[in-house]
Amino acid sequence: MIHLYTWGTPNGRKLTILMEELGVPYDIHPIDIGKDEQFAPDFLKISPNNKIPAIVDDEAEGGPLSLFESGAIMIYLADKYGQFLPASGAARYTAIQWLMWQMGGLGPMFGQLGWWVVSDKEQTPKGVERYAKEAERLMGVLDKRLSEAPYVGGDDYTIADMAIWPWISQYRTRVKDHVEPMVQKHPHVLAWLDRVGERPAVQKGFALP
Amino acid sequence: MIHLYTWGTPNGRKLTILMEELGVPYDIHPIDIGKDEQFAPDFLKISPNNKIPAIVDDEAEGGPLSLFESGAIMIYLADKYGQFLPASGAARYTAIQWLMWQMGGLGPMFGQLGWWVVSDKEQTPKGVERYAKEAERLMGVLDKRLSEAPYVGGDDYTIADMAIWPWISQYRTRVKDHVEPMVQKHPHVLAWLDRVGERPAVQKGFALP
Ligand SMILES: N[C@@H](CCC(=O)N[C@@H](CS)C(=O)NCC(=O)O)C(=O)O
Ligand SMILES: N[C@@H](CCC(=O)N[C@@H](CS)C(=O)NCC(=O)O)C(=O)O
Repeated sequence: MIHLYTWGTPNGRKLTILMEELGVPYDIHPIDIGKDEQFAPDFLKISPNNKIPAIVDDEAEGGPLSLFESGAIMIYLADKYGQFLPASGAARYTAIQWLMWQMGGLGPMFGQLGWWVVSDKEQTPKGVERYAKEAERLMGVLDKRLSEAPYVGGDDYTIADMAIWPWISQYRTRVKDHVEPMVQKHPHVLAWLDRVGERPAVQKGFALP
Repeated sequence: MIHLYTWGTPNGRKLTILMEELGVPYDIHPIDIGKDEQFAPDFLKISPNNKIPAIVDDEAEGGPLSLFESGAIMIYLADKYGQFLPASGAARYTAIQWLMWQMGGLGPMFGQLGWWVVSDKEQTPKGVERYAKEAERLMGVLDKRLSEAPYVGGDDYTIADMAIWPWISQYRTRVKDHVEPMVQKHPHVLAWLDRVGERPAVQKGFALP
């Protein structure tokens, strides 16, 4: 059984979406980061970086395995269940490339935009401008990619889509004044948001944590 | 043959280090990001996110393959040559987990610290403080990990070490006033910097681009 430690943030929702898509048994352990539960000693044993999401797979080959970092967990689960990530070849590494783009680019930069807009009481203009500009650039890169293929990895829906979708979906409301106008300018992103958002597992997984 | 598009930054150096470790033929195409060469149309075909590093493998299975995102390129090359990343099991995903931690945490946050300290002429205190605090936290997480194992992935040297090492090494001088004191407070990080830095391929790869 997969034990999922998570919360209702974009990184957490990647994993509830993936678990719903896989349709395998799992349970959810909520870690309320608003109450600093990510610093509890028992959770730090699983996730020493004090962040959600994390998993424990108590039926992993060779004994129980705990993992943190959403991108690593997604690759592990996709490989374990043989779904949503090709086992080899160009399509595999292209999907991993876009997953990395989410992990190293879209996620951290949207996250910074959220902090400078929502958490910084002064909305320091230099911070807001810097990250809004980067978010806009990233949205353009995604739009261009989605003008070439229906899914970010190519012809097939993969963990790369599941990693990017909750970030844009949640930030359309969380940082609405900045992100919603960017989304509206990018028709391929809009169509893909709908295409992925129609999936029952995406709807259920996004609503869950 | 692997064609590597890179420049002398931490993300670029990850790949020259890995290529030197692998000892397979490759050539280097310098992309001077100081002169905006990452926006040249030919380069954007390979790296639509306008960033180095990127590769073209003209002998990939199924035809030439181009990839961007350093973390994806590292997994691809480690798998292709069967080195520096176990093929399966807990050790594989633990190494990928720490690679993701570099891609999504240490890299973006050190990068932001560099921007607010070096590129922001005013050194806006709120920016410097925010990212210095996060860099310090990340250094503590790494030190704790290296108190348990000689390499970030565990007993063996992997692509996760190669991803983290050039970031800390380069930022010890690039953002010296902030990063060097952090490093000095973390004995396991210091010992690991030496352990990895003694490798001839690391020295050659770090000097190269
Ligand atoms: N790169 C990590 C980022 C995870 C992350 O930022 N988690 C946030 C919520 S979305 C968190 O747990 N924050 C609590 C904290 O940093 O103390 C991943 O993709 O898993
Ligand atoms: N997540 C990317 C980050 C790459 C990156 O930030 N590259 C920088 C140099 S270290 C770059 O090319 N910057 C030029 C630009 O953004 O225009 C990776 O790991 O490959």
